Amino acid sequence: MIASPYDSPPSSPLPVFLARSDNVGGATSTTLQQTPDHTFNPRGQIKLIGAGPGDPDLLTMAAYKAITSWADIVLADKLVPKEILDLITCKLFVANKNKGCQASGQQELFERATEALQQGFKVVRLKQGDPFIFGRGGEEYLFFRRLGYEASIVPGISSSIGGPLLANIPLTHRGVATQFLVCTGTGSHDTIPDMPTYDANRTTVFLMALHRLEALVEDLKLAGYPDNLPLAIVERASSKDQRCIRATIGTVVQVVKEAGYRPPGILVTGWACNALA
Amino acid sequence: MIASPYDSPPSSPLPVFLARSDNVGGATSTTLQQTPDHTFNPRGQIKLIGAGPGDPDLLTMAAYKAITSWADIVLADKLVPKEILDLITCKLFVANKNKGCQASGQQELFERATEALQQGFKVVRLKQGDPFIFGRGGEEYLFFRRLGYEASIVPGISSSIGGPLLANIPLTHRGVATQFLVCTGTGSHDTIPDMPTYDANRTTVFLMALHRLEALVEDLKLAGYPDNLPLAIVERASSKDQRCIRATIGTVVQVVKEAGYRPPGILVTGWACNALA
Repeated sequence: MIASPYDSPPSSPLPVFLARSDNVGGATSTTLQQTPDHTFNPRGQIKLIGAGPGDPDLLTMAAYKAITSWADIVLADKLVPKEILDLITCKLFVANKNKGCQASGQQELFERATEALQQGFKVVRLKQGDPFIFGRGGEEYLFFRRLGYEASIVPGISSSIGGPLLANIPLTHRGVATQFLVCTGTGSHDTIPDMPTYDANRTTVFLMALHRLEALVEDLKLAGYPDNLPLAIVERASSKDQRCIRATIGTVVQVVKEAGYRPPGILVTGWACNALA
Repeated sequence: MIASPYDSPPSSPLPVFLARSDNVGGATSTTLQQTPDHTFNPRGQIKLIGAGPGDPDLLTMAAYKAITSWADIVLADKLVPKEILDLITCKLFVANKNKGCQASGQQELFERATEALQQGFKVVRLKQGDPFIFGRGGEEYLFFRRLGYEASIVPGISSSIGGPLLANIPLTHRGVATQFLVCTGTGSHDTIPDMPTYDANRTTVFLMALHRLEALVEDLKLAGYPDNLPLAIVERASSKDQRCIRATIGTVVQVVKEAGYRPPGILVTGWACNALA
């Protein structure tokens, strides 16, 4: 089975009537208007694209080209920062996924995407990080397939991978860490997931973990993680106010109490945290 | 501790005498020449940059800007494909890391980098994938720090993360995989690493594993991986001849015997392999 990973975005300019970004937020239901003299593809196309951790310089070239010169409409996560949204010259819709609105926000986003696809538009679904790392990108892919559209998927830099690097923490390092695990500190429906057992050669990255730091640390201790194991919290990876808090399993609760915590952040633990310190 | 992740590459054009890429391979020892009327930074600067899995469209904007308009010299891995090297307009040196030459190739690369830095040049060390995922980027970072240069590090899309995505395999997928592990199938000095224990909710990605596929599969079976667990081999992720071979733990040896194997490739296993199939 030969896979064609994704199409190269064409460099043709957008029709003028779409080259507006004055509809950010999209609280009102605006329908894309087709000018009479423009011939549309009878069927739309969709790309499911990772926007990276936040810095526009960490967009891939594929993402940059797609949002600046390929798309007719971009449907973005609320987490995608303004600096990236500002690059978009076509129609933009930002999903309303505030606490309590996630389901309806996702539903509205699907409706907008469906409407645009059925009108023959080129749609970019822009997701923070990487679409397939805790982004539910697979579910969106299946949604569009059921509609009859095969999405092209473009990877992005996930904060789970790029965050440690930007804080000078190598996920693998010869003689220190030969593997890394990425997991969550909170399961679906706010359940507590099983802690991965301790492995001295492994770096472990926890997402969605910091709101229950104290309980997580207790779970890690029970799972055999030693008190002196280095640990880092990388907040707002790649943004101008990125911060890295360094501690150990034994000290992190007190250290965070003193430093405060500014979401979003990831927790990294393992001996590699100190490899370049 | 506030971290400044990396500098924005300046957009100033390169001095003309450096805008040549006619020295690819660099078998001869060419020293960068300084023209008399150009004032150099008394100390060089270095960026350690991930080039992604191979497709130039999967370079980050930071990588693209650095190799096309910031660097005076780019020192690239042998694995970085021609399509990316062709973008480089400044001096280029490609490390000779063929089998048996890895150590001397790395040594030569360090010598070239040191020479360029001491002459005040802007140096990009371009590594395939992500610098900190099995790229020994941490060791290079420490080398440059010992020389007195603090490298800026720029993440890239690792084939271990981007490869599964480009083969339509989500590393995480709600109700199927809540975590993923990236590890090697061969330890340092050709040792056999301990197999990670089987976890039904985990996707596991093996790098450097396919030359000993048969033995690896036996190790996985002993570690509790069920015969019917889906498995995929993603060869040459993101390149024009990317191919994905699908099988199970029980069938993969026979399937690969029939299909053949074209390196480089990664092996992915877990129920998520079938989530979008």
